[in-house]
Amino acid sequence: MLEKKSINVALLGYGTVGSGVFAVLKENEKQISSRIKFSTGKEVGITVKKILVRNPDKYKNVPKDLLAKNIDEIISDKEIDIVVEVMGGDTFAKECMQKAMQNGKHIVTANKLAIAKSNGELEETAKSNNVEFEFEASVCGAIPVIRVINESLEANNILDMSGIVNGTTNYILSLMTNEKKSYDEALKSAQDLGFAEADPTSDVEGFDSMYKMSILCKQAFGKYPKPENITREGISKTSPSDIESADKNGEVIKLIAKGYIKNEEPFVEVKPTRISKTLPLANVGGAGNAVSINCDNAGEIVLQGQGAGSRPTASAVVSDIINLSKKLLRG
Amino acid sequence: MLEKKSINVALLGYGTVGSGVFAVLKENEKQISSRIKFSTGKEVGITVKKILVRNPDKYKNVPKDLLAKNIDEIISDKEIDIVVEVMGGDTFAKECMQKAMQNGKHIVTANKLAIAKSNGELEETAKSNNVEFEFEASVCGAIPVIRVINESLEANNILDMSGIVNGTTNYILSLMTNEKKSYDEALKSAQDLGFAEADPTSDVEGFDSMYKMSILCKQAFGKYPKPENITREGISKTSPSDIESADKNGEVIKLIAKGYIKNEEPFVEVKPTRISKTLPLANVGGAGNAVSINCDNAGEIVLQGQGAGSRPTASAVVSDIINLSKKLLRG
Repeated sequence: MLEKKSINVALLGYGTVGSGVFAVLKENEKQISSRIKFSTGKEVGITVKKILVRNPDKYKNVPKDLLAKNIDEIISDKEIDIVVEVMGGDTFAKECMQKAMQNGKHIVTANKLAIAKSNGELEETAKSNNVEFEFEASVCGAIPVIRVINESLEANNILDMSGIVNGTTNYILSLMTNEKKSYDEALKSAQDLGFAEADPTSDVEGFDSMYKMSILCKQAFGKYPKPENITREGISKTSPSDIESADKNGEVIKLIAKGYIKNEEPFVEVKPTRISKTLPLANVGGAGNAVSINCDNAGEIVLQGQGAGSRPTASAVVSDIINLSKKLLRG
Repeated sequence: MLEKKSINVALLGYGTVGSGVFAVLKENEKQISSRIKFSTGKEVGITVKKILVRNPDKYKNVPKDLLAKNIDEIISDKEIDIVVEVMGGDTFAKECMQKAMQNGKHIVTANKLAIAKSNGELEETAKSNNVEFEFEASVCGAIPVIRVINESLEANNILDMSGIVNGTTNYILSLMTNEKKSYDEALKSAQDLGFAEADPTSDVEGFDSMYKMSILCKQAFGKYPKPENITREGISKTSPSDIESADKNGEVIKLIAKGYIKNEEPFVEVKPTRISKTLPLANVGGAGNAVSINCDNAGEIVLQGQGAGSRPTASAVVSDIINLSKKLLRG
């Protein structure tokens, strides 16, 4: 059992999410310590000990005294318990997480791309190195969908899931529906407001939704879908007349990601879908996210909230850090 | 650390919830064991070893070979790890749980009445006897609101909560809204369908909602509200003209339970409330439940699902049994 006054954390990345995590750990320090004490009986805080960023000049507000030179400085630091990967991207992030796990560090990450693309490899690395690998923030930001599947719905067979798991496309479709904008106008507006990136491909073509639903399938059905069992269509061809025609039928168009199991294999389908205005998912507006989970015993459970943004994503990352800290303190 | 092939459970009660728990544990046996193995590495099942009912003649389907004569037979059985209290009611249920805890048994309960009325005493008994006390099913049936507050939103200060936490009143108000029935007609219809009891006072006068929101306040704010900080008004005086007048204003009437903190004291308010049709809670139909939780970092999280019924409630009870089993197996 760890007998120490602090759980030490290293942040990889200090962008939107990383700076949010740093701020939440500072601002809610008391609240967090008291929650840890309530569960474990121990007076312990969580301390950010090092931060790695690839370009320190880019992040004006990064605490300079915490900057690490490189990943090796972090993984060789025996005092660091948890490496929090919030830089995003694929190859380098994955490499850092693997090195860290091989050096006995536990991981918390928000990186759906690296997780889904590694197709179980990251989880395997964690298992074989006997470390924990937590990733609540990788799917739907603040919404605790991973933990709900893994810890609250275990008495169930999950039958299928469907969700609005990408805020950018939901924002665009909401503008097209409510303000009758064209796709191009709505995309431009989303970009101006920072809801969409300069290259919006990953969001608007459904890649982001596909990664997220693939991760949810792993939790619900025990494995990732095979590439041939994934279909994906984005919203770039959705027209005002599609939306109008749905509206006349009492429906709205949402980019719905579905996950289900057939012959013991998980399937993922992402496509713009007409759904009745009376369904809970139809009422998810703006950049909101929601996931509906159909279970044999619990029935339908719907979780709704903010799927992106600095503080909402940090909320999920920090909840993983706290839960992991509790586990470490319990031994 | 427990080294055994089975976690043994005793059920107190075999009504709607108890028989559901028994069925779920049987039917999803494989699924449950594989979840436990995945988390703990151990091949362990969950076995119902004894069942206590006060009137065995009333429950035709109760497995006769498992019937216990009295609570003492259960608490003196060294092989029983977890006592699952699903008989409801106040005094006798509380007495059984306290005796069981004093004899080293862990508790899982669905009993909001006993928890809220004991005002922290049951949790204290658990603490002083070093046993676990789990009660996910006591608030909103299948919806994992307790675990989400305690394990997924820990990085947040919860600002306030509001919810539709009683299915009976939501069913009645939905009938009054959608089918323009009077309160008496809608109540009769709810009673005919088994959604309301012969004496509906606890539901329609808001007591049930008050107990549930008081329990949520304890989770979110660390203590139960003082009696003078609770206000409660039911739906028995809500008229068709109230509903019509709300409708004209783009609103619906829901029995909303609110919980918030002011000067470090929690407050609970239960009353029929006009809310905009655009809010997530406005779209919760029939006997559904939903809770909206406002957080400083995560923003608004809404959880929706079935708040009552045999299988939905059993889903929450069994998830508690599984999580508790994992803890016991990890030692």
